[in-house]
Amino acid sequence: MSAERLARVALSVAAEPGDPTFTGLVRELGAAELVRALTENPDHSDLLSRVAGRLAGVDPRAVLDRAARSGIRFVVPGDDEWPTGLEDLAGAGAVNERGGVPVGLWVRGPGRLADLAGAVAVVGSRSATSYGTRVAADLAAVVGHAGVPVVSGAAFGIDYAAHRGALSADAPTVAVLACGVDRVYPTAHRPLLDHLAERHLVVSEAPPGAAPHRIRFLARNRLIAALSRGTVVVEAAARSGSLNTLHWAQRMHRVAMGVPGPVTQATSEGVHHQLRLGGAALVTGGRDVLELVGAAGEHLTDAPRGRATARDGLRVREQQVLDAVPVARQASTASIAVVAGLAEAEVDRTLRLLAGHGLVAEVAGGWRLAAGLECGP
Amino acid sequence: MSAERLARVALSVAAEPGDPTFTGLVRELGAAELVRALTENPDHSDLLSRVAGRLAGVDPRAVLDRAARSGIRFVVPGDDEWPTGLEDLAGAGAVNERGGVPVGLWVRGPGRLADLAGAVAVVGSRSATSYGTRVAADLAAVVGHAGVPVVSGAAFGIDYAAHRGALSADAPTVAVLACGVDRVYPTAHRPLLDHLAERHLVVSEAPPGAAPHRIRFLARNRLIAALSRGTVVVEAAARSGSLNTLHWAQRMHRVAMGVPGPVTQATSEGVHHQLRLGGAALVTGGRDVLELVGAAGEHLTDAPRGRATARDGLRVREQQVLDAVPVARQASTASIAVVAGLAEAEVDRTLRLLAGHGLVAEVAGGWRLAAGLECGP
Repeated sequence: MSAERLARVALSVAAEPGDPTFTGLVRELGAAELVRALTENPDHSDLLSRVAGRLAGVDPRAVLDRAARSGIRFVVPGDDEWPTGLEDLAGAGAVNERGGVPVGLWVRGPGRLADLAGAVAVVGSRSATSYGTRVAADLAAVVGHAGVPVVSGAAFGIDYAAHRGALSADAPTVAVLACGVDRVYPTAHRPLLDHLAERHLVVSEAPPGAAPHRIRFLARNRLIAALSRGTVVVEAAARSGSLNTLHWAQRMHRVAMGVPGPVTQATSEGVHHQLRLGGAALVTGGRDVLELVGAAGEHLTDAPRGRATARDGLRVREQQVLDAVPVARQASTASIAVVAGLAEAEVDRTLRLLAGHGLVAEVAGGWRLAAGLECGP
Repeated sequence: MSAERLARVALSVAAEPGDPTFTGLVRELGAAELVRALTENPDHSDLLSRVAGRLAGVDPRAVLDRAARSGIRFVVPGDDEWPTGLEDLAGAGAVNERGGVPVGLWVRGPGRLADLAGAVAVVGSRSATSYGTRVAADLAAVVGHAGVPVVSGAAFGIDYAAHRGALSADAPTVAVLACGVDRVYPTAHRPLLDHLAERHLVVSEAPPGAAPHRIRFLARNRLIAALSRGTVVVEAAARSGSLNTLHWAQRMHRVAMGVPGPVTQATSEGVHHQLRLGGAALVTGGRDVLELVGAAGEHLTDAPRGRATARDGLRVREQQVLDAVPVARQASTASIAVVAGLAEAEVDRTLRLLAGHGLVAEVAGGWRLAAGLECGP
């Protein structure tokens, strides 16, 4: 067991997840060197000396052993399983905020972290509407069905729907928690989290046993974005925490996406604001998401085509004549010819052909549109 | 009465609205010269000779007199009331399509056409949902309340809601018809059209008496876009005619806008496609529209702010401590201090202050979040 790995375990326990002082120092010095400096030199700032004090009480081998007995492993940079995308977190943070590359990740489940490189994060409001949960589940199912893992936070609402949608497509899905991976939050999601730990992956930057604190949710959000090629927000009110996840995706130049909803719903207000600002691309479902996160040309979507109509098969001249039949009453062949700008004989011939397609009907004194076509375009 | 005006009346009656051959020739030759050429030289193409034949039967003075008796005037380029924005239609059309500057407009109502220069067109699906009609009416009311006229097409669905919304704000609103302004289409909208003719404006390129044909709707759509500074599509299925209006706005470099809706509704599919392509700006209501069509800085909207919460008034340190209280259970002052990264004495002082704001509560063995705050961000 390398000194660096043990030092990362110790720091993971002693320092707060995503504390920028420590993620920064680890990046500068390496974990082993930082732990050595903290242990040997008592002359620190308030924060450093408090962490140094905690470090003294941590036995990293015992922590790892205890974790292993619960089926939990600790993954650090350099491991095969380490998702190199996390390195984009270096320097992506802002002042006064959690940030930086985590010292390591605590992981439960048979999945392989590094396989998430092409994943899509699906996040959104905890107070989701039935519209939002339906859209999130469908979107995750389509994305998952294409073999793309779905990352989310196991929260109520959109997160839960996203995991459930992926599972319904028998697709890999990963929960990134703000608490230890041996804890369950929210407690109602124990069956989901147990299932993910058994078949997929549950991940956290916080050590086993850590409780969920608001500040840890903010630290966690950056990991959801960093573990994914793109982040979709399905519903988010103006100040939803899921917008924080979207901002991380933006800062790391990942694909930022939002699903619109009714403008009358506060739950879509935050998404619409991002779409207006151009901070996120509008997606209407899983196929749009795949098109944006896939390799160029891999998952191209068609433009929406609408319902096919009888008009579709017509030649230009035939459409021209059909369009010249009044929408609300009958007209003579002569008057239709004037409107169409075509010769009367040709119009007469064409009208008979259109009647054969059931598009117009001959009536006393002329022609009229068939039932169902009697309205403007 | 000038020869040019009379020639335009004659052409308006004899040629189809927006027939690109005639709008083009009028632009090249002027109407009087075109009528003279058609009348004097019988050696024409099929289309020209048919229009020439019809011209022979038109007495433009009689047409104008008859129109005037019905309260209808004919507005041509050079008139005070002529909306110069229509000139942008020259060259904006595509092959095989209605287009060009109209030879003139038939107008009913006390409004002044030229006053529409800052207007907003609100268009959309005839088969609108209750969501769409509500949004269109609200949007038109907000736009109208700001003194901006609302242009639409008097059709069922979104058009009707847009007119109604503007009227509810006692704002000017204009119907641009595909049939003559003395006709009523759809017939159910007679009360609306009568009211607009009496108090506002009803406009058409087609002469009095002209029936609504599909091809005239397409010609009409370009006028809705050209008479407005911007066009908003509220609901449009993949092949809705209202997208045709939006395309005209795009081609004339007017402000093209779309209101999103549920991605589960086919009625928003066409709008979402335009928003995805970047062909239209996302707007969530009248205030967004005013911001986009107004002069720079005239109608700026605020970012959505969400509900104010008790957290809003806190200092950074106070928020830091509050965020460090676990979301689902109690914790000791010491453990909160560790998570917050602050000295225990300061954390104790701050917790008591937060308790005074009702944000945390002291319990046996420590502190917990107040009811209603017990969840992640």
